[in-house]
Amino acid sequence: MEILLKKIVQVAGGKLSGDDSIKITGVNSLNDAESGEISFFSDRRYKDSLANTKASAVLISEINPDFKGSQVLVSDPALAYAKVAGLFASPVPKHNGISELSVIHDSVLIGKNVSVYPNVYIGAECSILDDCVLFPGVFLGDRVKIGKNTVIYPNVTILQDCLIGNNVIIHAGTVIGSDGFGFVRDGVTSVKVPQLGIVQIDDNVEIGANNCIDRAALGKTWIMSGVKTDNLVQIAHNVVIGENTLIVAQAGVSGSVHIGREVIIGGQVGISDHLQIGDRAMIGSQSGVAKSIGPGEIVSGCPTMPHRLWLKNSGLIMRLPQLNERLRNCEKYIEKLQKKLS
Amino acid sequence: MEILLKKIVQVAGGKLSGDDSIKITGVNSLNDAESGEISFFSDRRYKDSLANTKASAVLISEINPDFKGSQVLVSDPALAYAKVAGLFASPVPKHNGISELSVIHDSVLIGKNVSVYPNVYIGAECSILDDCVLFPGVFLGDRVKIGKNTVIYPNVTILQDCLIGNNVIIHAGTVIGSDGFGFVRDGVTSVKVPQLGIVQIDDNVEIGANNCIDRAALGKTWIMSGVKTDNLVQIAHNVVIGENTLIVAQAGVSGSVHIGREVIIGGQVGISDHLQIGDRAMIGSQSGVAKSIGPGEIVSGCPTMPHRLWLKNSGLIMRLPQLNERLRNCEKYIEKLQKKLS
Amino acid sequence: MEILLKKIVQVAGGKLSGDDSIKITGVNSLNDAESGEISFFSDRRYKDSLANTKASAVLISEINPDFKGSQVLVSDPALAYAKVAGLFASPVPKHNGISELSVIHDSVLIGKNVSVYPNVYIGAECSILDDCVLFPGVFLGDRVKIGKNTVIYPNVTILQDCLIGNNVIIHAGTVIGSDGFGFVRDGVTSVKVPQLGIVQIDDNVEIGANNCIDRAALGKTWIMSGVKTDNLVQIAHNVVIGENTLIVAQAGVSGSVHIGREVIIGGQVGISDHLQIGDRAMIGSQSGVAKSIGPGEIVSGCPTMPHRLWLKNSGLIMRLPQLNERLRNCEKYIEKLQKKLS
Repeated sequence: MEILLKKIVQVAGGKLSGDDSIKITGVNSLNDAESGEISFFSDRRYKDSLANTKASAVLISEINPDFKGSQVLVSDPALAYAKVAGLFASPVPKHNGISELSVIHDSVLIGKNVSVYPNVYIGAECSILDDCVLFPGVFLGDRVKIGKNTVIYPNVTILQDCLIGNNVIIHAGTVIGSDGFGFVRDGVTSVKVPQLGIVQIDDNVEIGANNCIDRAALGKTWIMSGVKTDNLVQIAHNVVIGENTLIVAQAGVSGSVHIGREVIIGGQVGISDHLQIGDRAMIGSQSGVAKSIGPGEIVSGCPTMPHRLWLKNSGLIMRLPQLNERLRNCEKYIEKLQKKLS
Repeated sequence: MEILLKKIVQVAGGKLSGDDSIKITGVNSLNDAESGEISFFSDRRYKDSLANTKASAVLISEINPDFKGSQVLVSDPALAYAKVAGLFASPVPKHNGISELSVIHDSVLIGKNVSVYPNVYIGAECSILDDCVLFPGVFLGDRVKIGKNTVIYPNVTILQDCLIGNNVIIHAGTVIGSDGFGFVRDGVTSVKVPQLGIVQIDDNVEIGANNCIDRAALGKTWIMSGVKTDNLVQIAHNVVIGENTLIVAQAGVSGSVHIGREVIIGGQVGISDHLQIGDRAMIGSQSGVAKSIGPGEIVSGCPTMPHRLWLKNSGLIMRLPQLNERLRNCEKYIEKLQKKLS
Repeated sequence: MEILLKKIVQVAGGKLSGDDSIKITGVNSLNDAESGEISFFSDRRYKDSLANTKASAVLISEINPDFKGSQVLVSDPALAYAKVAGLFASPVPKHNGISELSVIHDSVLIGKNVSVYPNVYIGAECSILDDCVLFPGVFLGDRVKIGKNTVIYPNVTILQDCLIGNNVIIHAGTVIGSDGFGFVRDGVTSVKVPQLGIVQIDDNVEIGANNCIDRAALGKTWIMSGVKTDNLVQIAHNVVIGENTLIVAQAGVSGSVHIGREVIIGGQVGISDHLQIGDRAMIGSQSGVAKSIGPGEIVSGCPTMPHRLWLKNSGLIMRLPQLNERLRNCEKYIEKLQKKLS
């Protein structure tokens, strides 16, 4: 594939310093780029890579004399890279139309230009709007609704009545709408609390591979628009996740937690049930969240504390043996003193 | 759906205060209930919700004058709710009979009223007893035995020779009977230890979505009756889990651990190999269990300690900077004193 | 199955003390072995089991007079056991040839003696070399290459362009080549960074069940030969894992981490992005790795510290209440002293 640099400058929303008639053959990192490729420079630590790259063009925030090729000036080179890389990305591979080897209930509504691979199962009264792609092994229970231009990768299970928006991506192996973990003790045995609600996933959400998002006990588990989850994330029943929140791999959110918008939740974080996480909060990796977190707070640790305090405490934990030794010295001196004074 | 309150009172095992001829249309929370619905009141913190609910009836442990509708008196409203909600839950959606689009070995024994969806694979010499439901994408290896009234959700893999009991529920994406992680070093390479055992799951077990339960190296990995696991749980080879134990999401149990009955294991807990966990023990979320735990013990932390001590220590960790400062003050005073006295 | 002890001695690479003409019917633990079976003795703690076992033969490192059966002398009984157990293990159950109920693009290259079960999907221009087994529900995207003698268990998803070596085992439910978690903020929304790379898995790798191994943003995520991962492991984009490294269940490796060879990573470990883990390092369970680790280092904790220090600190954390009390006593004495001296 070859794309005129002129076109790239346009997509990046930048200004060019250099020749805009050259053809670009791909994107790459500064170190790995070959002649003909475009790269980006957004971190001063890589200035040697910039000086030595074979790339023919770079996305950059200010002219750098060390680079001899074409420079595309943009305010945010990483963002510009994401946009430009999109030009070179292969589109999602589609099966041509609706495979006859899929099983689709007669009552299903299917929009225009939908791609259904073989071995898909679509239950009664589902609807799948225009431009969706369903890969092999996808299961849609009865009455599942899928918006436009949504991609559901192989072996994803979406159980009955769940609602998926437009421009959603659901990666392979993910389970949506499984029963929430709800039991009531009756003596020593556990009686299942029927999980009567659904999962609603709004527009522009991306769910990683092998996630589990449970249906609500009553009402809905709700993933609002723009949320992105990494792989192996657990979202329990009745959780609400606000717009544009990011959840890194292997994090787990317990039942009825309400998470605000633009929150960042690190990898392997656990959040206890019924808590509130305020807008734009940030939770460090492996944190154990046992109390609610206010808007904009940055926390870490198990249990969580302000991130700065956690850094200080982490250092002190490493020095506990010395602390213990220092205390012992104080005690010894005091003992001696006591003897002397008595 | 409409159910007479009279019938509900019966199922809940309660006594009625109010009109038992009204018809109930559904269950709901106090806040979201509409007229015609029944709710429950089990937590005094929600007494305002009780006073303001639009529900026509509540399950409650003693008459409350703030609620004007019918009151169903029960000893445990949450338990009664679970039972009553069951009346309104849709039954598991069944494929009508055995789909011709499934692949079933000739030697398979299938009971009465079994539902097999399309795209199921059932290996040689399996047996599936009455009233089971197998969803699309289910794989049963050779000689797998499934008891009566068991539901296996989409894309579940059960490998050869594993045994599943009656009234078991296995949620989507779960893998049962994969090889245990057993290797012996031979110089720098790892030689696979053949995993020759099976997994046995007893009656009334519910396994969450995307769990992994490995087959034993020798003998069996054994999940006893009434055990419930949440999503993304890892159970290694030769683990034994006693009756009615609960395991919350993303917990991991290493090889040959023996867990007693009615144990509660919190989310993201890790348990090291070959340990014993006593009956009715409770392990707090994210704990790292590196030594055995006695019956009835309540532990938390990494490594685990009695839960009360962990609470105390967690508080002290937060105050480590102050502790350090206080120690520094003692040291300074002692230094001064030493100078003075010398 | 019956195998002459003579043959077993050969496979174990051992010397016999006793009758080599007896026939062995299986392998088992010392406690559970029946007459006719062979067991192994590698841990002095089980010497009572050795004395009381019903096994007809044992793999053992030196003659033990307490055991009356045939003794097979080997330098490493556990390793010898792994080899001998392999004689008794059932081979991977194969579908006879290529199922007509699978969907295989015309352009696919398939070697000799390949077994493809029903409900497999193989995209355009894939190649699958001799002796491979693909179970039901396996999805191979376009241009996936699989080496010889590789086994891919049910419901595994391998997305386009990924490369899998020879003698690889991939357990059920695993996802290989899903998009890495790469986003750039544009105001409050997240713009997807196209993930243009692949996953390459080299020879003799074994990947556990329900793993997620993401494709690289650019270039490749690379699992080198002999690596073994347990279940529910997360490996992010652009990670490189050196030869013969072991990763225990539920561990997560963030983007662009480079892991050396023969490293051991414990269960539920998390490793932050862009770090280096040196050859033969060992990382204790549940550790949170936030800085690079040198070759041969043994670390634990969150954040990580030398394992010995972690053991010491863990003990001190348990005694924080006493430490606090001791400090209080020093303070009290000093206060008294100050009053006295003033």
